Amino acid sequence: MSVKRAPQKEIREITSAANPLLKVFRHALAEGVTREGLLAVEGPFLVEEALNAGERAVVHSVLVAQNAEEKFSGLLARLPKEAEVAGVPDRIFRQVAQTESPQGIAALVELRKENLEPLLARRQALLLVACGLQDPGNLGTMMRSARALGATALVTLEETVSPFNPKAARASAGAVFHLPVSAGQTTESLFRHLHKAGVRIIAADRRSPASLADADLRGPLAILIGQEAAGLPAEIARQAEMLVSIPIRDGMDSLNAAVAASIFLYEVARQRGFNY
Amino acid sequence: MSVKRAPQKEIREITSAANPLLKVFRHALAEGVTREGLLAVEGPFLVEEALNAGERAVVHSVLVAQNAEEKFSGLLARLPKEAEVAGVPDRIFRQVAQTESPQGIAALVELRKENLEPLLARRQALLLVACGLQDPGNLGTMMRSARALGATALVTLEETVSPFNPKAARASAGAVFHLPVSAGQTTESLFRHLHKAGVRIIAADRRSPASLADADLRGPLAILIGQEAAGLPAEIARQAEMLVSIPIRDGMDSLNAAVAASIFLYEVARQRGFNY
Repeated sequence: MSVKRAPQKEIREITSAANPLLKVFRHALAEGVTREGLLAVEGPFLVEEALNAGERAVVHSVLVAQNAEEKFSGLLARLPKEAEVAGVPDRIFRQVAQTESPQGIAALVELRKENLEPLLARRQALLLVACGLQDPGNLGTMMRSARALGATALVTLEETVSPFNPKAARASAGAVFHLPVSAGQTTESLFRHLHKAGVRIIAADRRSPASLADADLRGPLAILIGQEAAGLPAEIARQAEMLVSIPIRDGMDSLNAAVAASIFLYEVARQRGFNY
Repeated sequence: MSVKRAPQKEIREITSAANPLLKVFRHALAEGVTREGLLAVEGPFLVEEALNAGERAVVHSVLVAQNAEEKFSGLLARLPKEAEVAGVPDRIFRQVAQTESPQGIAALVELRKENLEPLLARRQALLLVACGLQDPGNLGTMMRSARALGATALVTLEETVSPFNPKAARASAGAVFHLPVSAGQTTESLFRHLHKAGVRIIAADRRSPASLADADLRGPLAILIGQEAAGLPAEIARQAEMLVSIPIRDGMDSLNAAVAASIFLYEVARQRGFNY
């Protein structure tokens, strides 16, 4: 192990594949998170989005392939002082990476713990609640739309795929760092918070005859989106104040779950004058 | 090779992995289409959707795993008289199948050739045009939304992923059989058709300051959607009558391409009173 000085950031060179940090990265890139709960991401786009997220995300460690150190020197220079940077031979980076075409950089990022109460207290609070979704790509796409279309936060209930799953983080196009996310809530706890804060609950239910476009979506709102195939469990739908559907052509079963969620968010934003 | 009689449909039993029909299925399930242009699909859901599509789709051949013949007897009984059904040992079916958990049935389906002219002549014509999209899942999701939200047809331009790619067909949730699809058009030919039919052309352009919600989307319309990362090529955008964007939060680059297309379709449907 040697230490060499990059223009602005010290890079610790690792040469042994048995180095413990590599084990941490390998496990975390496969699972999405380290055992301590740090989010693991690959590629310069997501690392840069983590740096752009301000206080919401703190980069702890970066792993960079030696042939990519120069290419990413600008990115490395933006890292917080406390962040550690490890350089590894390209061959070892490829072993640690989980993507098909590794781009030579990965990071472990601490996300700020989100407290729902202040978020719900906002005048235009808009929560997207994923109830049982299983496809990480769908959940990631929902995060991307939620961020872009002005949602205050994403909440996932128990039995829902993790928003920190690597595929979800990628599909979120960085939104996972910007959008407050509260994962694995119980239905009871979430509804208690929503009732206490006076947030209305609207559920996407494709069997409902009420059209989304006719619903009044102004004021603090939580939108419940069910599982891809089965939709929303009856015991959750029952607790919503409004059940509405996107009117679709006869004979069609449903829209993709991320598409449905995004159309709900768009309709809310439209009614609120795109006033983010 | 032996022939046995199922209640309603004759099944030709194939025992040799070298049988030419297996070669055709194996190639077609990997590519999405046979050399003759038949669409290849796996799983009972898509086979059933092909049968539900009426004149638009004709099932030519079905391959069924022997342990699944009874389970799928209802589906097999619905096949057209001319369709051939081949039964194979489960082990051989798994070798031919391309999905991770093969469900024991696959089919080759002829899609009706679509002629754009009569479709464009409709009073409420609504064309979704994919210009350069590369992700088959995104294109499939767009087909699903197009079908559900009342589009007349999907057109893909050259350099766009095939709508008959296996992943696209799966993501379409069967819409590939119901929605008229015209693949691989040249820009020149498409625009000529649109101009001749008096169809207005609107392009999704995230840099446009004009909001989708303010655009008048009634009357015959073609919606152009660009590539995931690069958006719409300038030479195509230039030919559109309107460039509009979905207003999103500052600092966000864009929405997922299938989500953006679906929001465009929703806004059209909303303005037209969901009158499919």
